[in-house]
Amino acid sequence: MKIELAYDGTQFNGYAKQIKGEGLRTVQNDLESALSMICHTPILTVVAGRTDAGVHATQQFVHADIPNDPYNGKNWDIENWPYLLNRILRDDVRVVKVERAAPYFHARFSAIERSYEYKIADNLQFIPPLKRLDVASWFRPLDEVKMNEACAEFIGEFDFYSFCKFREGSSTIRALRRFEWVRENSGYLTAYITADAFCYNMVRNLVGAAVCIGEGRFEKSWMLDLLHNHRRPSESYSFPARGLTLTSIVYPPDDELLARAQRTIARRDEQRQRDDE
Amino acid sequence: MKIELAYDGTQFNGYAKQIKGEGLRTVQNDLESALSMICHTPILTVVAGRTDAGVHATQQFVHADIPNDPYNGKNWDIENWPYLLNRILRDDVRVVKVERAAPYFHARFSAIERSYEYKIADNLQFIPPLKRLDVASWFRPLDEVKMNEACAEFIGEFDFYSFCKFREGSSTIRALRRFEWVRENSGYLTAYITADAFCYNMVRNLVGAAVCIGEGRFEKSWMLDLLHNHRRPSESYSFPARGLTLTSIVYPPDDELLARAQRTIARRDEQRQRDDE
Repeated sequence: MKIELAYDGTQFNGYAKQIKGEGLRTVQNDLESALSMICHTPILTVVAGRTDAGVHATQQFVHADIPNDPYNGKNWDIENWPYLLNRILRDDVRVVKVERAAPYFHARFSAIERSYEYKIADNLQFIPPLKRLDVASWFRPLDEVKMNEACAEFIGEFDFYSFCKFREGSSTIRALRRFEWVRENSGYLTAYITADAFCYNMVRNLVGAAVCIGEGRFEKSWMLDLLHNHRRPSESYSFPARGLTLTSIVYPPDDELLARAQRTIARRDEQRQRDDE
Repeated sequence: MKIELAYDGTQFNGYAKQIKGEGLRTVQNDLESALSMICHTPILTVVAGRTDAGVHATQQFVHADIPNDPYNGKNWDIENWPYLLNRILRDDVRVVKVERAAPYFHARFSAIERSYEYKIADNLQFIPPLKRLDVASWFRPLDEVKMNEACAEFIGEFDFYSFCKFREGSSTIRALRRFEWVRENSGYLTAYITADAFCYNMVRNLVGAAVCIGEGRFEKSWMLDLLHNHRRPSESYSFPARGLTLTSIVYPPDDELLARAQRTIARRDEQRQRDDE
């Protein structure tokens, strides 16, 4: 089953179930509980992109293997599942769509592109309370022209080591396809960021570095030096979760899913072999 | 002092301080605490329109008599008060503006017009979690043409007895100036409602009655019968607080405030005399 969902991350301790901290509310816990309730059996899910505590999603995908309806041994009638699931879920997470997944579909490994947005109300501008949930605030004015000049040089395939939290055995090479700041009609500054995939904390570290340029603390060369010479910026530059929203995940056409799965498995084997050496 | 504020009512037990239930969070409590902290002395406020638990405001006004700065005996430097107050207040209530009130300004009695909006996502349409705070949902589709036909006949000065919670000695005559439903680009249906003033629960009762027309439960004649024959509709038709937002309060020019105050006092005396007879 392929499930599309959206959530306000404010009240969640992130997307993923946590091994420690059983009492913590997570999107995965809420969704799996609701699915298990409908199916009368425990259901496990796999997500496209685990988001951190406080991070939102306007589009997120999950897949789950669902056994047949135990009462008639047949496939479930999933047409009204969004309605049923949304009746069970609290209103800060909504199921948008439920459909049968194509063969070889994997929510995480099939995905070929992810996009995020990061919203900043700079210069102490007023944030309407009803629209505050997904906006971070910054007290200084930011110069989006300078920020875009620096961020344009990040487009391409690079080792984003400096902007990723270290994880044993994980590659930090990513292909960044868009990293652009737009001054919205609302007055906010929004970063539109797209890549094949992101490492842990990468977007918030990139945003923090760009803000250092935008407020005039550092020059563009500082940000390029971080990227090319693998120097990590101070963790204090990383920006808070509340401004960050996962907005889109792209999958290839159904008939390319098998080829995509084979490539992913091959790459993982290669990586594992390297690690074993 | 004249203070403009905005709030998300979700986490508040209404605007007004409550005599019972001291532990309950209200906007007035939060604001008066913040003002008292800045002024080092207890400050009391008067609001333009008390809103119910769960009701929001994108524009609300308050006045307060503020004693001079005790440290120098002079007027306060209020230029940075919005900043100071917003540092103390939680982010679901924001001070937009602080200015010295004109002579005879009274946040409640000087106001000559109030406007509300009521947002409904009908026909079970999807409500994005990040934009859910001020939207009520309704499962049936609503016909805004029918609703507008009925609501147009409510424009004018009428006794809105049927749509007001009974309060001893209060008039229920109000001048309704706008009551219009608009299908927004978002798909939601928004009611724009303006009057000189509103009685308690009046907007939510009017919205509930209009929805009965929009979903085809009753004809327009039913709604007009309620108004003209002082028949109260079932309380179950009243709509929830979350869709309701106070959006604007209009005051006359400063040089008309005295005349306005005199008229208000005269009307109150008249009412009191009638009550005494």
